[in-house]
Amino acid sequence: MNLHLSETHEDIDLDQHVALLRDEVNARLDLILQFLPAQQTGLCSAMRYSLLGSGKRVRPILCILVSEAAGGRGRAFALDAGCAIELVHAASLILDDLPCMDAATTRRGRPATYKKFGDATAILASIGLLNRAYEVIAEHSSTDDAIRTAAIRVLATAVGTDGLVAGQEIDLNERSAFTDASRVEGLNWLKTGVLFSAAAEIGAIAAELEPDAIRAVKRFSRHVGVAFQTADDLIDQEGELQSAGKDVRQDDYKPTLVSLMGKDAARYSCRQRLEEARAALAESNLDGALLKSFVDSILAHRTQG
Amino acid sequence: MNLHLSETHEDIDLDQHVALLRDEVNARLDLILQFLPAQQTGLCSAMRYSLLGSGKRVRPILCILVSEAAGGRGRAFALDAGCAIELVHAASLILDDLPCMDAATTRRGRPATYKKFGDATAILASIGLLNRAYEVIAEHSSTDDAIRTAAIRVLATAVGTDGLVAGQEIDLNERSAFTDASRVEGLNWLKTGVLFSAAAEIGAIAAELEPDAIRAVKRFSRHVGVAFQTADDLIDQEGELQSAGKDVRQDDYKPTLVSLMGKDAARYSCRQRLEEARAALAESNLDGALLKSFVDSILAHRTQG
Repeated sequence: MNLHLSETHEDIDLDQHVALLRDEVNARLDLILQFLPAQQTGLCSAMRYSLLGSGKRVRPILCILVSEAAGGRGRAFALDAGCAIELVHAASLILDDLPCMDAATTRRGRPATYKKFGDATAILASIGLLNRAYEVIAEHSSTDDAIRTAAIRVLATAVGTDGLVAGQEIDLNERSAFTDASRVEGLNWLKTGVLFSAAAEIGAIAAELEPDAIRAVKRFSRHVGVAFQTADDLIDQEGELQSAGKDVRQDDYKPTLVSLMGKDAARYSCRQRLEEARAALAESNLDGALLKSFVDSILAHRTQG
Repeated sequence: MNLHLSETHEDIDLDQHVALLRDEVNARLDLILQFLPAQQTGLCSAMRYSLLGSGKRVRPILCILVSEAAGGRGRAFALDAGCAIELVHAASLILDDLPCMDAATTRRGRPATYKKFGDATAILASIGLLNRAYEVIAEHSSTDDAIRTAAIRVLATAVGTDGLVAGQEIDLNERSAFTDASRVEGLNWLKTGVLFSAAAEIGAIAAELEPDAIRAVKRFSRHVGVAFQTADDLIDQEGELQSAGKDVRQDDYKPTLVSLMGKDAARYSCRQRLEEARAALAESNLDGALLKSFVDSILAHRTQG
């Protein structure tokens, strides 16, 4: 895959490269969740059901593209760490859908995990996926232990009480009272931005970038993450079940950037974030043409009004 | 604390030493879950509520005692890693008590976490504790990164689909059909043994023991863990709410070693495990007098019929 990077970027078909990366990620995820016959419990089935299938794999692809933009250094670790982040993402979706949380029945066009396996097995599958994420990073033997512990710390910060779980808690218990768009944007950061940022930062750590470059990559991915969540809110507002592949208008009773700003302003905010992301990417001094195109491609069709 | 170890073991008052260790662990756990004022959400309160309080701290004490038995090498890491294991244990208890799992209302003499904070916050607190466990190990800066990744791998194996979450899944969905004591013992291993074993193994890794000694420590702690779970089943059978501090006879409808073997045979099995644990400890060549006394003390009063 790295061969592409020695060519001129204009020569590379982005869609084809991303499709190859997605295939590579899917194959790796499948390997990461291989179980022995004796382990074939409902738990293992629920873990595979929740992880494998039709995910866009945006986070692992982002992680790999950062390492490729640094010349492919640490790419094997970026693949595994990116997959670990996808495990965490899948774990969070299982919980989001639970009856005691968003009570969503459909996810990626299929029954939510708890609808198919029951609440208890779904919760245990979520724990199993989060746990496996840390195991995958810790057991990646072709990288220095220091890089692995650094990646684990970044991931743990993204998941914990300054990240995903805090975001879900605020979403459930505080968001309905939000009247200020900046609070919604802060929540979007916790629910989506932190994991995007972790994906890109871990790609930069894998590539052993200098601290200044890592900081620029973090700024880049932070803006991308918030833009992505805003775009998701636009989809929830406008989408159909068929195209979103999940329950839409679940968030009707909750304020979103869209409900507080209106669609046009939300689209504008999204585009502005994208501009800031591009500026940060330029400051990173990475060979970021593919990264920029990738981000454009995942957001462009969502933000055209 | 290590000063004790330079004395003759006969001189040491075990109860006093364990009480000091418990205080040290409790103080460290309190520090590990310090939150900023801006983070004072229900989530953080639920995490502190579930972790802090009256736990016996058997797992972290076991981890520290192994490192002390090796002369105190790696003791600071054993303290933090032992605390991480206690976080995992607390996370597992939150889930065990949920309405969709054991539906227990009381834990350690207080309302179960979900009764006090609601199902959603309880589940997120469990995730937050598990996640913080990995963070605590990864960020322990006074130990080699290789020791940290080794400890994370041991912990992840203990939690995952060959450990705790598998045990809980089997407990919920398969145990009611068990008729064979050996299957119950296998389940006891998954539900309790693996985390005991991880605690002792990580203490041995912290102390940088040789592979043979680590294997002996694992055998020792495996036997201790299974004995401890059998003793727990005896308490569930015989106990009163006041003394157990949790709902007792929750397991009445599930076969246990006690129900399949009878109380006397279960007590005998427990004592036999203890003998095997002592033999394994002797093979480890550790200075294990305190460890042996500690294990005796946590099990003796449970296995006297």
